[in-house]
Amino acid sequence: MSHLMASIKRAAPELDVVMHGEPRATHAEIAACWDPPRGALANMPNLRLIHSIAAGVDNILSDPELPALPLCRVVDPQHARGMSEFVTWGVLHFFRQLDVVMRNQRQAHWFRPAQEHPSQCTVGIMGLGEIGGRVALDLHRLGFAVRGWARQPRALPGVEMFDNAGLHAFLAGTDILVCLLPLTDETRGILCAETFERLPRGAKLIHVGRGEHLVVPDLVDALSSRRMGGAIVDVFPAEPLPSDDPLWHTPNLIVTPHMASVASSDTIGLQVAQNVQRLLNGEPLHNVVDITRGY
Amino acid sequence: MSHLMASIKRAAPELDVVMHGEPRATHAEIAACWDPPRGALANMPNLRLIHSIAAGVDNILSDPELPALPLCRVVDPQHARGMSEFVTWGVLHFFRQLDVVMRNQRQAHWFRPAQEHPSQCTVGIMGLGEIGGRVALDLHRLGFAVRGWARQPRALPGVEMFDNAGLHAFLAGTDILVCLLPLTDETRGILCAETFERLPRGAKLIHVGRGEHLVVPDLVDALSSRRMGGAIVDVFPAEPLPSDDPLWHTPNLIVTPHMASVASSDTIGLQVAQNVQRLLNGEPLHNVVDITRGY
Ligand SMILES: NC(=O)c1ccc[n+]([C@@H]2O[C@H](COP(=O)([O-])OP(=O)(O)OC[C@H]3O[C@@H](n4cnc5c(N)ncnc54)[C@H](OP(=O)(O)O)[C@@H]3O)[C@@H](O)[C@H]2O)c1
Ligand SMILES: NC(=O)c1ccc[n+]([C@@H]2O[C@H](COP(=O)([O-])OP(=O)(O)OC[C@H]3O[C@@H](n4cnc5c(N)ncnc54)[C@H](OP(=O)(O)O)[C@@H]3O)[C@@H](O)[C@H]2O)c1
Repeated sequence: MSHLMASIKRAAPELDVVMHGEPRATHAEIAACWDPPRGALANMPNLRLIHSIAAGVDNILSDPELPALPLCRVVDPQHARGMSEFVTWGVLHFFRQLDVVMRNQRQAHWFRPAQEHPSQCTVGIMGLGEIGGRVALDLHRLGFAVRGWARQPRALPGVEMFDNAGLHAFLAGTDILVCLLPLTDETRGILCAETFERLPRGAKLIHVGRGEHLVVPDLVDALSSRRMGGAIVDVFPAEPLPSDDPLWHTPNLIVTPHMASVASSDTIGLQVAQNVQRLLNGEPLHNVVDITRGY
Repeated sequence: MSHLMASIKRAAPELDVVMHGEPRATHAEIAACWDPPRGALANMPNLRLIHSIAAGVDNILSDPELPALPLCRVVDPQHARGMSEFVTWGVLHFFRQLDVVMRNQRQAHWFRPAQEHPSQCTVGIMGLGEIGGRVALDLHRLGFAVRGWARQPRALPGVEMFDNAGLHAFLAGTDILVCLLPLTDETRGILCAETFERLPRGAKLIHVGRGEHLVVPDLVDALSSRRMGGAIVDVFPAEPLPSDDPLWHTPNLIVTPHMASVASSDTIGLQVAQNVQRLLNGEPLHNVVDITRGY
């Protein structure tokens, strides 16, 4: 957190930046946070703005005592770029069958996978927002067939769009499923047996949304029955994933430590400072979250 | 080979396409080959053209009885694209520290690597020909700092060029070294201890050239001393790599089965057929290899 405090101070030296827990924090007018202790924000009577220090706000919205105040989040093109790197790595890993090749290496087994054109491989992205939209365009540029699923279909050149009613059709044609949804009541548990069964047999999953999107036992079953051919899971209901969690050792599953992408503390500091400035000047805030919608 | 014969026939139905070993093959006027038995080409008195079915010609040029005839190779943009996918996967694997993360998974160890901008990572590509040039441009577009080493520096936008005299400077600033050289007398054994020692400590290698570029014991030493931080090796002096070769189990080494990229048999068939047509029409051949230069 101290990096972040320093970066907010750099961007707005006139602000008094204090750590949660310090006595002065109770009087704060702006809270910058990621996973605030339940009720903590309700105990700040002078609060005027809550600012997520990340793209997601699910850990803030889940506070049952959340005060009715404007809520903003960080939208950082570099953050989306980092996500695109991670998902591109994962898509290439499955598409070029490096998962098979790396397993074969342990058996000293030489097997040359057939090489296809990427247009033969359909990547289906759930959530085409600031981050998912960028990932979709980047994968399309690499030649993959890209489709996206969102509430309101968005015009992204080369990307086939599906809305909520089109979920089954979306899944039926998806070889590699990427989850970049925000966590809301509608999306909780969306990565479940029913979803996996609608994918083509042997489909892959790259899950970089939130832990609670995924019904873990359903994925484990789908992998062990070979319904799903492999998965990369970056997010978990409890993080760090406990070292005795059997998920670490599930065959055909790559566990990554919520690393797909972080916004830089410079950007977070700047965006928080700029929104504070807008608040003080009575100007419209940027990147305001729709609280009823949940993202 | 039968796929390839079918594809040559499809592209030029008037040709008589026969398999090496069939009696009629001795009278062939054109030989399409990858690793012909030593002396076989010298025993074809009517031969007018030798056509590699790949980008490389080292297995043909190493025939001590090679007849003095025009030698052509395949140049396929899809082949270069496939290579770019493989190298991009490898570069992202090292850049985003997925090698560390996947090792950590075996120990159920949660460790989130720091995330950098790709411009902080320099990829140095040896050989900037039809394939290396495409790889360089693609990696530059992803934001990496890209430099290339070739005999005659080639103007590739955004790519810093080094010639033979600049080898040491090229290596000193390279975080991830990619070998896409052809195998010639000058390049044999170029990936050796001296080269590795000139790289920054902990540099990575992605070797997708030819097996004989690499001095295997030097790489094993560099990996075990941590001079080199990791390697992906796709090509070997004897392929398939024998199952009792200790290389399969070298720590921090990913062995892949000469899979980085193949030209499609459709393209090979078409390019061979078109060059045959040019030969018959007395037109200049395409993709002629400079035999004295060796590529
Ligand atoms: N693993 C990591 O390191 C990491 C890093 C950053 C972010 N993330 C995750 O990525 C998520 C997305 O971030 P973002 O900035 O791209 O979010 P965003 O801009 O808010 O976009 C959200 C997208 O999800 C769609 N969506 C939301 N609810 C839906 C529903 N019920 N049905 C169908 N589509 C729905 C939205 O559809 P509409 O366009 O129709 O509104 C929109 O396309 C974050 O919330 C977080 O969970 C993970
Ligand atoms: N692993 C796989 O699946 C796979 C697949 C395809 C190809 N390959 C390998 O990739 C190689 C390159 O293919 P390509 O089609 O790109 O070849 P290319 O078009 O002939 O280009 C060769 C490049 O290497 C440079 N070069 C050659 N000798 C050199 C030397 N002594 N010093 C410095 N640079 C030198 C050339 O420099 P100039 O530009 O100055 O001439 C040129 O830039 C093939 O020969 C093969 O070994 C591997």
